[in-house]
Amino acid sequence: MNLSNEHSLRQEKIRTLMNQSNIDAALITCNVNLLYICGQIISGYCYLPVTGEPLYFVKRPNGLKGEQIVYIRKPEQIVEYLNEKKIPSPSTLMLEGDELSFTEYSRLAKVFISAKCINGTPIIRAARSIKTTLEIELFRQAGAAHTHAYQQIPSIYKEGMNDRQFSIEIERLMRMEGCLGLFRVFGQSMEIFFGSVLTGSNAEAPSPYDFALGGKGLSPALPGGLNGTKLKKGNTVMVDLGGNFNGYMSDMSRVYSVGKVSEEAYRAHQVCLEIQSEVTTLAKPGAICEDLYNKAIEIVNKEGLSDKFMGTRQQAKFIGHGIGLEINEAPVLAPRIKQELQPGMVFALEPKIVIPGVGPVGIENSWAVNKDGVEKLTLCPEDIIDLQEFIPNA
Amino acid sequence: MNLSNEHSLRQEKIRTLMNQSNIDAALITCNVNLLYICGQIISGYCYLPVTGEPLYFVKRPNGLKGEQIVYIRKPEQIVEYLNEKKIPSPSTLMLEGDELSFTEYSRLAKVFISAKCINGTPIIRAARSIKTTLEIELFRQAGAAHTHAYQQIPSIYKEGMNDRQFSIEIERLMRMEGCLGLFRVFGQSMEIFFGSVLTGSNAEAPSPYDFALGGKGLSPALPGGLNGTKLKKGNTVMVDLGGNFNGYMSDMSRVYSVGKVSEEAYRAHQVCLEIQSEVTTLAKPGAICEDLYNKAIEIVNKEGLSDKFMGTRQQAKFIGHGIGLEINEAPVLAPRIKQELQPGMVFALEPKIVIPGVGPVGIENSWAVNKDGVEKLTLCPEDIIDLQEFIPNA
Repeated sequence: MNLSNEHSLRQEKIRTLMNQSNIDAALITCNVNLLYICGQIISGYCYLPVTGEPLYFVKRPNGLKGEQIVYIRKPEQIVEYLNEKKIPSPSTLMLEGDELSFTEYSRLAKVFISAKCINGTPIIRAARSIKTTLEIELFRQAGAAHTHAYQQIPSIYKEGMNDRQFSIEIERLMRMEGCLGLFRVFGQSMEIFFGSVLTGSNAEAPSPYDFALGGKGLSPALPGGLNGTKLKKGNTVMVDLGGNFNGYMSDMSRVYSVGKVSEEAYRAHQVCLEIQSEVTTLAKPGAICEDLYNKAIEIVNKEGLSDKFMGTRQQAKFIGHGIGLEINEAPVLAPRIKQELQPGMVFALEPKIVIPGVGPVGIENSWAVNKDGVEKLTLCPEDIIDLQEFIPNA
Repeated sequence: MNLSNEHSLRQEKIRTLMNQSNIDAALITCNVNLLYICGQIISGYCYLPVTGEPLYFVKRPNGLKGEQIVYIRKPEQIVEYLNEKKIPSPSTLMLEGDELSFTEYSRLAKVFISAKCINGTPIIRAARSIKTTLEIELFRQAGAAHTHAYQQIPSIYKEGMNDRQFSIEIERLMRMEGCLGLFRVFGQSMEIFFGSVLTGSNAEAPSPYDFALGGKGLSPALPGGLNGTKLKKGNTVMVDLGGNFNGYMSDMSRVYSVGKVSEEAYRAHQVCLEIQSEVTTLAKPGAICEDLYNKAIEIVNKEGLSDKFMGTRQQAKFIGHGIGLEINEAPVLAPRIKQELQPGMVFALEPKIVIPGVGPVGIENSWAVNKDGVEKLTLCPEDIIDLQEFIPNA
């Protein structure tokens, strides 16, 4: 385990928050948090004291070397090791309470029987929500790859395709550009494969998942996203795939059409672009999340589109969300969220409107908050692109 | 919510086990368990009493109708509803302790403050491990689609491909045959995108994940599976993708080669086929899991291949695993597992050997246990297929 300065910096961010809460040590075992603090996923545990060297208790993979690596078979050996090395046992220990199963958490709490165990997930997520310079750079690279894949979308369209065939070819473009495919979501209730491609009335179908738009899905086994609807003349199709190119979940939606669509659809699309413009003008350090949400609502109300904003039969109650190693990080741009934007936050802003009989319109880009405002990380053209213009000899 | 006989049958299986453990009711909220008991994923909860009608407390999707449907915003309303309807509150309540986060479990336990809460995951997984007639039929259909995708693999091979390019085209074949893509794994520690394609020495690379073989992966963000290795003459490549075509995770591995490979590799492949044959001859109701594992070990020891079986630098300690809505269900064919096979169990058997300098060989099929023995669900040819024979005009 060769900890870079980057990972020491991340650990320090967590330790600062631990110190403020009088926490002596953290025991971290969830993949995404391990990836964050040491740049590597292990089957095992990182024991991170508020001061002093972290220790890595590893079950798999074989063959890691370093002074801070201790191979174990079970977590009980962690405490044995700390005792043996006369490392003081923690009075207050932070565990990943929102991520570990009840059974795993309870076992670890029993292993550290003399410690008061508290839920450390909010602290780790708070640290993760403020990206480092390197993380922002990784997001820029992800955004560029994501953009490059989307630029090729018109080239794979063929007349008569359905949403599934269209999505499959775009998934392939994403993978060819280096997308790892894995879509990491915080919490166990949201499931998705690669993202969402929605056309026509399927964009109105309510889903159990709390994504921006729903979709019926191909099977009750995955009730969200595309459902086999043909891409029809006069309809739009929205492509919203997750861009895990290097661990960081860039997020971008673009809208395509088959031929021309209704004036209402073009107008609603412009309203979404206006929301993006207005909200990102406000978005700077100190801006309050609910104010950004309310600005969007103010615009859709003024335009008389509130019953179609973020869905029709079911409407999502947010216009954006933090992104990072997972698709749903802090901050959330939603009602009653008083959190302020800070430099280093990265979020997706996705004002979307569903036009019955046509399909979804709108926009989604990934944005990094800097000291003056925001930087756009995903740079594709933003108008509705007519796929029919790209059919050879059409 | 239109409960079919099928779902009533599944609920009865769980209730029988609840009754044996003196559990009054279950509160089920994890997607895969909801899909199992009512054929539908909701954001919400199924309250399943040991006798009487189940109730569905739904947050999303909008628009469900039925006498047993109650819309709620938060779980506290479940108890309010039960009190209002004079439904007796449970003395012992079963929650999904191995699946819910500590925070969620604790919240629900607090909601049902007068009940003794116990971990119900083992009961639900026990019920799920014995498939119904319909589930077996769904597995047959998944196996047939999976087979059909694999049959087309030689057609997508092009000289000079690396493992990533090869995998991307096979993922596309799987998707075109109807694969939903989502790879459901029990527990939060194992992550994978679509499955694993391993060639050459990458098959030896240890991974933190407990899959049959490792692989370095393309990025520390997903340290398993393919890593960009070129498919080279004299090397093998193993394709092991998950087949979620209808919710059920069929599992199948096949081995391809670029030109001829070493005699040792062909011989090791035959040893794996022999293990498959011997183990599936023993596999019938009453057979004990560890005996099946030990039979495999006996054969590899006799053949002098034990240091290459299930990996070299890191060796998996199982030869098979139950499959269902998740890739890792009961039973596990591993040392010290005393569980007996029963009719209705479905498992993947995957004896694999890694030959340094060549790559992985071996076989994986999905099998359903019936009253006399086992039925093979994945029916592709099992020999090593030379991809070079399929290059047009080669």
